[in-house]
Amino acid sequence: MSVGNIIVGQSGGPTSVINASLAGVFKTALDRGSNKIYGMLNGISGLLNNRYVDLTDKIKNNLDVELLKRTPSSFLGSCRFKLPEISADEKTYENIISILKKLEISHFFYIGGNDSMDTIKKLSEYAKIKNIDINFMGVPKTIDNDLAVTDHTPGFGSAAKYIGTTVKEVIRDGLVYDTKNVTVIEIMGRNAGWLTSAAALAKGDDCEGVDMIYLPEVAFDLDKFIEKSVQIQKEKNNFVIAVSEGIKTADGTYVCELSNSDRFTDSFGHKALSGTASFLADKLAAELGCKTRSVEFSTLQRCGSHIASQTDITEAFLAGGQAVKAAFDGETGKVVIFDRISNDPYLMTTRVADVNDIANVEKVVPAEWITNEGTYVSDELVNYMLPLIQGELPPYMVNGLPKHITVNDIK
Amino acid sequence: MSVGNIIVGQSGGPTSVINASLAGVFKTALDRGSNKIYGMLNGISGLLNNRYVDLTDKIKNNLDVELLKRTPSSFLGSCRFKLPEISADEKTYENIISILKKLEISHFFYIGGNDSMDTIKKLSEYAKIKNIDINFMGVPKTIDNDLAVTDHTPGFGSAAKYIGTTVKEVIRDGLVYDTKNVTVIEIMGRNAGWLTSAAALAKGDDCEGVDMIYLPEVAFDLDKFIEKSVQIQKEKNNFVIAVSEGIKTADGTYVCELSNSDRFTDSFGHKALSGTASFLADKLAAELGCKTRSVEFSTLQRCGSHIASQTDITEAFLAGGQAVKAAFDGETGKVVIFDRISNDPYLMTTRVADVNDIANVEKVVPAEWITNEGTYVSDELVNYMLPLIQGELPPYMVNGLPKHITVNDIK
Repeated sequence: MSVGNIIVGQSGGPTSVINASLAGVFKTALDRGSNKIYGMLNGISGLLNNRYVDLTDKIKNNLDVELLKRTPSSFLGSCRFKLPEISADEKTYENIISILKKLEISHFFYIGGNDSMDTIKKLSEYAKIKNIDINFMGVPKTIDNDLAVTDHTPGFGSAAKYIGTTVKEVIRDGLVYDTKNVTVIEIMGRNAGWLTSAAALAKGDDCEGVDMIYLPEVAFDLDKFIEKSVQIQKEKNNFVIAVSEGIKTADGTYVCELSNSDRFTDSFGHKALSGTASFLADKLAAELGCKTRSVEFSTLQRCGSHIASQTDITEAFLAGGQAVKAAFDGETGKVVIFDRISNDPYLMTTRVADVNDIANVEKVVPAEWITNEGTYVSDELVNYMLPLIQGELPPYMVNGLPKHITVNDIK
Repeated sequence: MSVGNIIVGQSGGPTSVINASLAGVFKTALDRGSNKIYGMLNGISGLLNNRYVDLTDKIKNNLDVELLKRTPSSFLGSCRFKLPEISADEKTYENIISILKKLEISHFFYIGGNDSMDTIKKLSEYAKIKNIDINFMGVPKTIDNDLAVTDHTPGFGSAAKYIGTTVKEVIRDGLVYDTKNVTVIEIMGRNAGWLTSAAALAKGDDCEGVDMIYLPEVAFDLDKFIEKSVQIQKEKNNFVIAVSEGIKTADGTYVCELSNSDRFTDSFGHKALSGTASFLADKLAAELGCKTRSVEFSTLQRCGSHIASQTDITEAFLAGGQAVKAAFDGETGKVVIFDRISNDPYLMTTRVADVNDIANVEKVVPAEWITNEGTYVSDELVNYMLPLIQGELPPYMVNGLPKHITVNDIK
């Protein structure tokens, strides 16, 4: 039986391993006898403009598949496009389906976070209503690790490994002088503190670790923050604090808004959150009377694939492959998720879950994993993260730098 | 003939490979029959307070030597201490020599940049005047690559490799959306643009590279900068600009001072230069009416040893070893430097040069290597850098993170 043609797209923020999931979809579909394998350019938004490629023209052999697993960001480009409600704008759905019919698509895969899973939810609903014979499957990805139902999300492990590694290097860098100094590190995560928690990974027998960790799950109190910093400085010359970009005071004001600088607001009304660490470092310089510095990991933490986690890459590839297998078995409106069977030794399985349980839901760090009056995280959380950062899949280095594969159709 | 006891210190800003030079000094001195090998804690400033360790207690075997080569920042701690003129304060010199005599030191090694070489210059002068039988040797290190006489400086290659790798990843990250956006990356280098030039390494058959590079060697013109940005945006949605933290306008004002925020000034009167990229990104957002973002590589570029250059580590180790060999051969008041015999294939030799030609001298990027009216760098400069970023010496990964070695005496 022919499995027909498939199409795959990437959506939302890039990660170090979103292309590993694309590689998993591609390779598994190819191995299982797909006819054509298309890739949407810039996700559903590009597809609506008939922008797609034949992926077999772009990924020509197994070396290309391996390169794809080692290339950060979204090979096919991405979008932040939210489908309208079906009742509100049926035309958009008709357009999408007509393009898919033209390409004779039987299976549709979308790699993304909880916003992107909304696309799978709506398209699979529409297909059911209209009796359209296309399977819609979601492949999870987000550095934020904020997807419901699944144990964790591909992309998180590599970002956590980057953060653990770099925090450790920054701590070591801060130790060199015998004068007092404080470093404040700003880590991504608007509402969920998973990534910021990864700063705790730096601690070990060769590193004292960071001294405080502030997550967006806990209301931030500037006075207590300064008070605790004063206390720590009495015990040591150098210390390091990790803060989420999304920390807010009890009244809901982002800490970065406490400074005077204007904030960029994007088309969704989301404010740019950059500047939290810099604001706090300036405050501490004034209050402690010592040198302080701020480090924003910024976009580096999501695209630093040169230090990606092998476990994460393998699981991202697996998630793509499992989505293909499930779709070929007739599933639709589902998302691949991970169940942790055992933590040590680490054992993980996959299954598919109903997209309705996942789309638009946000999973934050549980309160019982936040310790020291909201200024650190528990060993349980560290043990939860550790298996996800294990192993490396180093880039193919060509002339001293990582080699990437490009689709060459995105400007 | 016994070679007696030696002492070694590290000074100035940390790098990814300053410990490889320490490993080179240690291993070579040990292999050549040194009796005791001491390490100053926090450089000459710590030594003056009798803070030192017996390095054989800290580096116990060849695995420790290998770990040391893979550990960023200064294992022994550092200082920014400038010795007074001999005529102005002979007491300090007497103190140092008395400590060295107490430890029965025959050879003194100092790993650092051009400020630190001033220490070697003055101590060797003092020893000559006073007929003291101790050899003083400098081992070069600085990510800034601004040392005179030598072809390049250990530390630069690894920082350049980090910058090339990360710029490439940031460019890829910026390409994912089909909306207009600009990224401004801020790179270290107060007066010399070597490091910022390393952004040019990202360009290749899989990466368009950055579109403009601004070095501190060229006076910065904000109007022309905006004009050029407007031009580039007519041709492409996404582009990336690399700027040095030290760029100044024609009247000598640092660009980061053009914003309103207060600048931290350190005890040497050096202003903190952070904020250049953020200022320019805000300007471009207003002028181009699109999303912009700034990325500061900050301290990450000098301590990102997880992506260090093998060539750089090997040469840093060699520089330490050559310093020991030269000192044991009776040299004093000298610095190990590199001569490039051939670029492709790359062939490098070392020799020692007079410290007077190196201390306190700053080597900037030659004008003929700066192109496009001061907005890019030449192929010659790229070809100069390429051999220095070749190869990797990956960290020993333990439980998912790089393992470091620590002296445990620095708080």
